Amino acid sequence: MRKYGFGVDIGGTTCKVGLFEAAGALVEKWEIPTDTREGGKNILPDVAASLKGKMEEKKIGKDEIEGIGVGIPGPVQPDGSVPLCVNLGWKDKNVPEELGKLMDGILVKAGNDANVAALGEMWQGGGKGCKSLVMVTLGTGVGGGIIIDEKIVAGANGAGGEIGHITVNPHETIPCNCGRKGCLEQYCSATGITRLAKEALSEGHEASVLDHAKEVSAKAVFDAYKGQDPLAGQVVGKFARILGKALSNIACVADPEVFVIGGGVSKAGDVLLEAVGKCFQEAAFPSCAGIKFALASLGNDAGMYGCVKLVLENS
Amino acid sequence: MRKYGFGVDIGGTTCKVGLFEAAGALVEKWEIPTDTREGGKNILPDVAASLKGKMEEKKIGKDEIEGIGVGIPGPVQPDGSVPLCVNLGWKDKNVPEELGKLMDGILVKAGNDANVAALGEMWQGGGKGCKSLVMVTLGTGVGGGIIIDEKIVAGANGAGGEIGHITVNPHETIPCNCGRKGCLEQYCSATGITRLAKEALSEGHEASVLDHAKEVSAKAVFDAYKGQDPLAGQVVGKFARILGKALSNIACVADPEVFVIGGGVSKAGDVLLEAVGKCFQEAAFPSCAGIKFALASLGNDAGMYGCVKLVLENS
Repeated sequence: MRKYGFGVDIGGTTCKVGLFEAAGALVEKWEIPTDTREGGKNILPDVAASLKGKMEEKKIGKDEIEGIGVGIPGPVQPDGSVPLCVNLGWKDKNVPEELGKLMDGILVKAGNDANVAALGEMWQGGGKGCKSLVMVTLGTGVGGGIIIDEKIVAGANGAGGEIGHITVNPHETIPCNCGRKGCLEQYCSATGITRLAKEALSEGHEASVLDHAKEVSAKAVFDAYKGQDPLAGQVVGKFARILGKALSNIACVADPEVFVIGGGVSKAGDVLLEAVGKCFQEAAFPSCAGIKFALASLGNDAGMYGCVKLVLENS
Repeated sequence: MRKYGFGVDIGGTTCKVGLFEAAGALVEKWEIPTDTREGGKNILPDVAASLKGKMEEKKIGKDEIEGIGVGIPGPVQPDGSVPLCVNLGWKDKNVPEELGKLMDGILVKAGNDANVAALGEMWQGGGKGCKSLVMVTLGTGVGGGIIIDEKIVAGANGAGGEIGHITVNPHETIPCNCGRKGCLEQYCSATGITRLAKEALSEGHEASVLDHAKEVSAKAVFDAYKGQDPLAGQVVGKFARILGKALSNIACVADPEVFVIGGGVSKAGDVLLEAVGKCFQEAAFPSCAGIKFALASLGNDAGMYGCVKLVLENS
């Protein structure tokens, strides 16, 4: 094992870059803008220039780099190639080959951003010490990543861990972004929680601080929940039941050591874990009832950590 | 890689034993009775005696055996030990250690029977040529096994692939064998199909051959379905919708290359695959809609094949 590795989490706006020691310590992190013009043709050259600049600055030779792991906001094939990435403007981009050439033959691996975030949380975050986990990212949508035996379950069609699109309500009438109806993310994302709250507010209810809230957001709902607001209690209860039941079904498939909950909604903290964990236990297959729940702890850096872990297989 | 391996699938009544060439060819198979008396203490000595007898008969030396894979009808820890196996009378049985000693140090690995059957179907059966699959066994209950990257997903609690206990009906009032309500196996096992048929028969319906059937079994239902019986069509339709939807949710987690359908109910053949596959496609997340369906092809030998594959990792 060589001394260093790079993790590069490419987002639609910025690339988060980290220089790591192979043992896991983050040496330095920085960001560069993602230039999506002209089919995103400058993205990898920009990344290469930034990495080379850092190597020069730190006097790190090519032979001291174990590899470069790259996270992509879209489906990635097992060989690291990207058939289509709308967010970056890419089509048929072979990331390991192209970036490898730009970096004079340094090993490059690539993975989907949600999956590498899950790997990062397993390695140095909320799932540290575990070899298997299901990461649940509660953001604008509901994302997921599954790690079994320290490896990403990418899926035959890049849909491994697409848990936001598990159908939880066959009676839903409003379509999900995916075109189907009743997906988990229609209820348990930040957007979904806001919707559940607005529905509750539109029905007869006791006075609630949310009646006068400037904005009915997932954060406002959880803040009100912490203040014992009954309507917020009802909304969080519904959210927790839906998510807890969905996770109990996921447990019958992947049976992970831990569920790691991340994304903006997870900033609600322990009260969220407690509510979801309780509903999970009530619904779970007996053998799985003891699966732990943890909050993600690397925030937006999780992807960068997971990226470098892709090339540091044995660390 | 040495020349031979043994697969030993231990069931509650008989042990199915196979002598394989490492390349995958079955040389010979036979059965020995499973002696569950006195806490099943004779099971492994009986297996060892049978294997040694075969080695002597075939003039196969210890050094020609790559290893012995063993399937157990219960949860198996990653190290191959069995905390509790009611069907065999075992408690805290370290199979690799005990059988390894009896076999003069030959490598022994052990796995759960449903999981090794899935591995066997991937290696030489309905999933041959694939590296990932979800096996669905429709028997008295609904069992499952998940293979990702040619490896069994055993689960942190031995519940990997326990897909029969995914909750598909939150409104169920009758309990499942697991104590919970609304599990997949309450509708899609042989028992479940019989129940669906009896329910349909008890309601107002057009004349059906099942009205006069000697026994309303899953086989009778599928036979009537093949004969265009309308009530059987309704029952198979319900079965297929429930199973197809459950598999569409499993696809959002594991996203396998293929679903392999086995167990007694799968003897209904292609009509079953077609009905379930159609409902799956209607419910599936778009990326997953192309996942293939195949019938299991090794029957009761699947476990024996998967067992030997446990010790032939690179073949």
